Amino acid sequence: MEFPSKLIEEAVNEVSRLPGIGKKTALRLVLHLVKENENRTIALTTALSKLRANIRFCKTCHNISDEDVCSICKSHRRDKGVLCVVEESNDLLAIENTAQFTGVYHVLGGIISPVNGIGPDELKIASLIDRVAQSKGEIREIILALSPTMEGDTTAFYLHKKLRDFPAKITSIARGVPVGGELEYADEVTLGRSITSRTLFS
Amino acid sequence: MEFPSKLIEEAVNEVSRLPGIGKKTALRLVLHLVKENENRTIALTTALSKLRANIRFCKTCHNISDEDVCSICKSHRRDKGVLCVVEESNDLLAIENTAQFTGVYHVLGGIISPVNGIGPDELKIASLIDRVAQSKGEIREIILALSPTMEGDTTAFYLHKKLRDFPAKITSIARGVPVGGELEYADEVTLGRSITSRTLFS
Repeated sequence: MEFPSKLIEEAVNEVSRLPGIGKKTALRLVLHLVKENENRTIALTTALSKLRANIRFCKTCHNISDEDVCSICKSHRRDKGVLCVVEESNDLLAIENTAQFTGVYHVLGGIISPVNGIGPDELKIASLIDRVAQSKGEIREIILALSPTMEGDTTAFYLHKKLRDFPAKITSIARGVPVGGELEYADEVTLGRSITSRTLFS
Repeated sequence: MEFPSKLIEEAVNEVSRLPGIGKKTALRLVLHLVKENENRTIALTTALSKLRANIRFCKTCHNISDEDVCSICKSHRRDKGVLCVVEESNDLLAIENTAQFTGVYHVLGGIISPVNGIGPDELKIASLIDRVAQSKGEIREIILALSPTMEGDTTAFYLHKKLRDFPAKITSIARGVPVGGELEYADEVTLGRSITSRTLFS
């Protein structure tokens, strides 16, 4: 694609580095900013700069936080005995939005992926093991809430191996047909799994 | 959606103001920036700020340009006798990418849309009429390359009314079945139009 302006070209190049945004979408976004009031662009770039310069991570669970310890870890209303292990902060947010979980989290910051060169040492796994050890049995359950993919399964398997000697029960989020989905459209692996992992009707 | 950090919340709010980007996508983009090296965010915000602060528009055709007159209007290899009227700069870029057009452009900067409160005066229509008048017959053809929508048709109709007394021929881009598309999936209006506007087989 040829651009009428170097400024546009540079902006499109930078925006299209974002995940899931190609050159065409980037161009549309950039032209939108050009058309709008300059204050909008200033607000956007200021918010991003401030975020990147000042962002911190919770020392306990590695979730994104404005303080040293995040509001979830600090809260007295959360059950510190149930620890939910997630890949990234957005998984944590997704679970929080369900309002179904009252325990605490541990954010790995990624997933074991040999293809992308990410091994256990690149993730917050040592810190997880340390945290479970330090709790001296206070942590009763560790929920592995990882994506149902090859990498997710590998990571879950690795974590299970490292954590099984602690007294905590290790569980995994349920896999089955999604709520609201039609049975006939569920893929066969999921459907098979939903039959073998059937639960008592209640 | 509740956010673990005010910084994240502000950034997500700003990013989700962009067209076609919802809160979830915005969060994914923002978390991506947080995870990457800070230099990436600096490069992105700098490119956007520089763009917005320094962007200029061609005095002749209103296309985005780094100079007072854009490279297309300046070029001696472009046919100044054929003028293609488009809604926005991205339409111009799309046509340039086909490498099928050697004339010059006029960017309206929008489309007549009473619903959105955009009338002829908000667009570069007066400047188009002026440009055609000033050319004293040099402009032989005006191509209306507007979207095949209600607003596009309204704008084309309005422009035709304003321009028909000039000696230039007024044409419109062809409508019909898209190249590579299957006939059975074409909508009936398009297919009907493609039959009534059939062309000699060549």
